[in-house]
Parts: sequence; structure tokens; C-alpha cells
Amino acid sequence: MTKGRLEAFSDGVLAIIITIMVLELHVPEGHEWADLGDSATGFLTYALSFVYIGIYWNNHHHMFQLCEKITGPVLWANLHLLFWLSLYPFTTAWMDESDLARTPTLVYGLNLFAAAIAYTILQRLIIRGPGGAGLREAMGADVKGKLSPVLYVAGILLVFVSPVLGLVPFVAVAVMWMVPDRRIEAYLAEHEAQRS
Amino acid sequence: MTKGRLEAFSDGVLAIIITIMVLELHVPEGHEWADLGDSATGFLTYALSFVYIGIYWNNHHHMFQLCEKITGPVLWANLHLLFWLSLYPFTTAWMDESDLARTPTLVYGLNLFAAAIAYTILQRLIIRGPGGAGLREAMGADVKGKLSPVLYVAGILLVFVSPVLGLVPFVAVAVMWMVPDRRIEAYLAEHEAQRS
Amino acid sequence: MTKGRLEAFSDGVLAIIITIMVLELHVPEGHEWADLGDSATGFLTYALSFVYIGIYWNNHHHMFQLCEKITGPVLWANLHLLFWLSLYPFTTAWMDESDLARTPTLVYGLNLFAAAIAYTILQRLIIRGPGGAGLREAMGADVKGKLSPVLYVAGILLVFVSPVLGLVPFVAVAVMWMVPDRRIEAYLAEHEAQRS
Amino acid sequence: MTKGRLEAFSDGVLAIIITIMVLELHVPEGHEWADLGDSATGFLTYALSFVYIGIYWNNHHHMFQLCEKITGPVLWANLHLLFWLSLYPFTTAWMDESDLARTPTLVYGLNLFAAAIAYTILQRLIIRGPGGAGLREAMGADVKGKLSPVLYVAGILLVFVSPVLGLVPFVAVAVMWMVPDRRIEAYLAEHEAQRS
Repeated sequence: MTKGRLEAFSDGVLAIIITIMVLELHVPEGHEWADLGDSATGFLTYALSFVYIGIYWNNHHHMFQLCEKITGPVLWANLHLLFWLSLYPFTTAWMDESDLARTPTLVYGLNLFAAAIAYTILQRLIIRGPGGAGLREAMGADVKGKLSPVLYVAGILLVFVSPVLGLVPFVAVAVMWMVPDRRIEAYLAEHEAQRS
Repeated sequence: MTKGRLEAFSDGVLAIIITIMVLELHVPEGHEWADLGDSATGFLTYALSFVYIGIYWNNHHHMFQLCEKITGPVLWANLHLLFWLSLYPFTTAWMDESDLARTPTLVYGLNLFAAAIAYTILQRLIIRGPGGAGLREAMGADVKGKLSPVLYVAGILLVFVSPVLGLVPFVAVAVMWMVPDRRIEAYLAEHEAQRS
Repeated sequence: MTKGRLEAFSDGVLAIIITIMVLELHVPEGHEWADLGDSATGFLTYALSFVYIGIYWNNHHHMFQLCEKITGPVLWANLHLLFWLSLYPFTTAWMDESDLARTPTLVYGLNLFAAAIAYTILQRLIIRGPGGAGLREAMGADVKGKLSPVLYVAGILLVFVSPVLGLVPFVAVAVMWMVPDRRIEAYLAEHEAQRS
Repeated sequence: MTKGRLEAFSDGVLAIIITIMVLELHVPEGHEWADLGDSATGFLTYALSFVYIGIYWNNHHHMFQLCEKITGPVLWANLHLLFWLSLYPFTTAWMDESDLARTPTLVYGLNLFAAAIAYTILQRLIIRGPGGAGLREAMGADVKGKLSPVLYVAGILLVFVSPVLGLVPFVAVAVMWMVPDRRIEAYLAEHEAQRS
């Protein structure tokens, strides 16, 4: 039950984050294609942030399928993750409005990085807790999980060369995670097979 | 369980989209009926978009009753649909504020069309997946589903003649879907009858 | 299951309406009590609309406990109710910003009235549907339900005398419904007693 | 069932409150670190309000695990609590934009205090209701619950000396509650052990 309510609350927060980002897309003042073109950066980064939240929702959901008990630290680590994710609309909007200026793009990258670290902390706490052995086993080498923060740091450093260049590793992380991750599904299927 | 959480997340996103559109309705500066009259276009298109989201929620709900397993592609096709739907408040607001100027009305139509295509993709993926035979059988000839994109394209073309004229097929799609669709309910009732 | 998802969706919409109204409360520009005083009307009418949504949520919840099957008409009558409720933030904000000018207060009253009518339609459709006999029996004479639209009309007429006076019957409706309504609870308790 | 829907509705409202606060964080007009620095107060108080809502969600969840029946008064006491919490985005934003001026910080403190009182009322109503003995037993001396309003009053008084000083007890309350409270968990674990 506790788990169900934590999942429902997290789903609610993620659903709101993913939807209110559109409120930061300013309606163009003119009525021509050119006016919409000014919003084009906004549209692309909105799509990027949308995909990120979709990925977090997907991974969050899979991870908690293998979490047996919500302890206090897990609950707060989850809120910590939601905190960084709830800043996405703010940092996305600042980057958009600046037309990919250096500092706002850097701040966006730092926001992505902070969320990735928060996710790693949450994952480690669940692995250490009751029933965590299953999650560790399912995670395996966790290449994607380890690669993501590295790519974020690479993007952050590249922003100093050129903000657009910095976006490349950020997009790479999103693409990498959209390729379906069958580890947990495979783990569950295998264990179900063993039982029967 | 996976299905329950996907439905809950989708419901959350749809509930937020349908509600935040009202935030795009600007409070009139004056305090007379005439001032409210300036918001009248906004009110009507707000109602139209409200009905669209209601229809998607309704159809989404029926479709997933016949979906047995959430695969990775289904999950991403669902997020893809939610992405286009989450742009409704933005495109509705632009069309409103332009008093039905050509380009914004065209963009609104393209948004409606993109969502319809995204829905079709989602439906096909569910039909191809485990348990999809039931959905295909329930869908039958799927006249409405095939007619909707055609009507959207007709509306998009008519916008070049006159934006108001282009809205006619858009409204027609909404009316067509509001007429209750008993296919899935009939299918479920029949199969339940067969079992007992 | 259908009922569960309709309730969850309605809860989501009501939760969002009740919460986003605060976004219409403009943060005062000055930093003194007097500046907050300018928002005082906003605060009171915000509280009033908050109570209304709370009442609708409460009554909605009780009513659907006695609804056995969600038919197409019930689904659309429910969305129709949510449509009028979703306009509360807009009409509340207009009334607030006009400092209770005549037309905005009138429009607020019409919004309240439209929602009451939508609720009555929904209730009648549920009573006519499968299992509706229980709801009709539980409703009894339904004095409150019949009195509410009358009071709203009285308030709308009084607005022509004085907008502040028109608010009196609106507040009376809220107070009347906050007094707990034990009819459905009593009906359920009685029937449960009969079974055992 | 009634309890499930009250929890779901409360979760929805809390999820929205915690997320829309970010909408009050104004995107800086400039594109430098210094421009973000102007938002720094906003960032810190946003984090503080985020933690408060997280604490309320956590405590709310634990408390209702021991609530057996939702009576009318409990339902309204719950809405009363949500009302004060829904004002957090407003009072947080005012305090932020004033750069911690006296009156806005005072109003923020009064908002925190009102929510704490609303929570105490809700707790007492649950304790008095059916099954409330378990909650009273689990609460024990309830040192934290009694200390919180005292600290809020201390903060409110300190604001008259210096607004920044007033924030110290407010932060202290948040820290105090973040330290995990095992009373209800311990109570449940013990009683489960007794049964088996």
C-alpha cells in the first residue's frame, strides 16, 4: 500500500511536470510561420525535456516493481529526485528564452546531472534495502546508468566550447534510454518461470 | 499492474491538459459584456479542445481494456500521443489570440492531425501485440478511426480558403466521436456472455 | 473498473481546478499589509470557489458509490459537469480583478448555475441507468439539490441590485452543503445492515 | 474505498501544489549567473516549501493508515488542511519577490502556522473517530506535533526582529520532521507481530 501511494504521488508529480512545461512555451505575438519559428528552439527543447521525463517515469516504474518496502530514506530520496525534475520547466524555459546562451544551457545541463545523481542515490538505497538483491541482479553492470552522468558532464564541458555542441550528449542520453531496456522485464519473466 | 500505472499516468496528463487550457483564457481587462465578447472565440475553441481531450480519454480507456500487455513500443507510442495532446493548450491559445488567422488555425489543424496519427500508431501496436486480436475484432472496419485523419486533412486544406471554414470538419470529427461508440462494450459483453 | 477510472479522472480534474485557482491570485507588488489588502477580495472568493469544488468532489464521490455502470451518456454528462467547473478559476479571477463589478459577478453566478444544472443532469442520468433505483431512494426529496439552482437564480437577480448582495445566496448554498449530508451514508449503512 | 479516494484526491492536490510552485519562479531576463543570482532567494524558499509539502504528504499518508473511517468532519478537516497548503505557492512567491521583506515573511509564517493548526485539528478528529485509539497510541506524546506550532510562533515573532532570523525556526521544523518518524511504522509492526 505504501508503495502504491508513493508511485501514485510520483506519477502525479511527473504527469504535472511533463504537462506544465507547455505553459512556458510563449504564444507568438505575430500570426505567421516566421513568428512560430521564433518559438522553434522552445519547441525542440520542450520535446527533449518531455522525453527525459518520459524516460524517468518509465525507469522509475520498472525500478519500483522490484522494491519491496518503502523505507524513510527511500521516500526522501524519491522526493529529492522529484525536486530536481520539477526544476526542468524552469531551466528549460530559461535556456529557450536565451536562445541557447551559455549560462542558461550550462544550468540546464547541471539540472540534468543533478537529477541523474538523485536517481542513482535512490537506486542504491533501494538495492541496499529489503528485497534489493533482486534489483541489483536485474541491473547487472548498469552500463546506461553509469554512462548517463558521464555524458551529462561531457555535455556540460562542451557548453563552454559551444552551447549547441553541449546539447549533443544530452540528446544522446535521451536516445540511449529510449531504446527499450529489457533487463527488469527479463529478470521478472525469468523468476516467474523459475517459480512455476 | 504495469497497465494500471500507464493508465493512471495517462489519466493524470489528460486531466491536466484539459484543465490548464483555462489558464490560457485571458481574463478580460474591462468589466462589461463587450469585454467578455473579445474572449468569445477563446471560449468556443476552449470548449472544442475540451471535447477532443474528453474523446481521447474515452477512447484511450476503451482501447486499453483490450490491451493485455504493455510492451516498450506501446509505452513510447502512448507518450508520443500524450506529447501531441499536450500541445493543444498552446496551439488553441495561438489560434484564439489571432482571432482565427490563417497560419495559427493551420497549425491547430496540424496538431489535431498529428495526434490522430499518433493514436492510430498506438492502436496498431496494441493490435500487433499480445492479446491484440481482441482489439482488432472489436474495432471491425474502424470507419471513424479511418475517417478522422481524412476530415482533419480536409479541414487543413479548407483553412487556405477560409480559416472559419476549416473549423467545420474539425467540429464534425468531435461530433462524430461524441456519438457513443459501442463496439468495444459490445465485444466485451458478448465475450463475457460466451464464457458464462 | 470503468467506474474507477472515471472517478480517478474526475478526481484529477477537480484536484487541479482547486489548486490552480491560486495561480490566479496575483502576488501583490508592494510589501505591506495594505498591498495584501488589495488581494483580499481575491482571497475570499478564492476560498468560496475552493469550498464549492470541495462540495462537488464530496457529492460526486457519494453519488458514484451508488452508480453501478458507466454508460456513454453518464460519461459525457460527467465531462459536461467538469467543463463548467473548469471555468471557475476564470470566472473567479475576472470577478476578483473587477472588485465585484456587476457583469463579472453575474457571469460568476451564471457559471455556478450552469454547474448546478450539469450536476442535476448527471444525477438524473445515473438514476435512470442500471442500479439507479438505489440512488433515487437515497436522494429522497433532494431538498438541497432542488434548492441550489433556485438560490443561484436568486443571487443572479440580486446582482442587478448590488453585486455584494448577490454573493449572499451564493455563500448560503456553500454553507448549506457543508452541513454534512448523511442520506447516502445512511442508505448504505441500512442496506448493509439488511444484508447481514 | 472512501478512504482510498480521499487519499488519491489529497495526493493529487499535494502533487500539484509541490509542482506548480516552480511556475512562480520567474525566468531571469538576463542570461548570466548574476541574473540567476537574483532568483536565488526564490530557489531556496522554493526548496523549503517543497520539503514542507513532502513532509505533509508523508505524515498524511502515515496518519490515514490508522484511520478506519472517513466521517464528514474528517473530510472537511482534510479539505481545510489542503486549503492552507494550496496557499504556499502564493505566500512563498510574495516572500521571494519582496526579497524577504517583513510583512511577506510574516504572512508566510502565518500560512505555515495555519496549516499546522489545520493538521492538528484533522489529527484530533481522526483520533476521536472510529479506530482512533490506534492513532492516539501510535502518536504517544507527539512531541514533534506539539513543538511545530510553537516553533512557527517563535519564527513569526522573530520576523519582527529580522525576517532572515524568523526563517531559522521555520527551517528547524522542516529538519526536525525530515528525521524519520518511526512511531506509526513501529506501532503497525508491533501489532502485526502480536496478531501472528
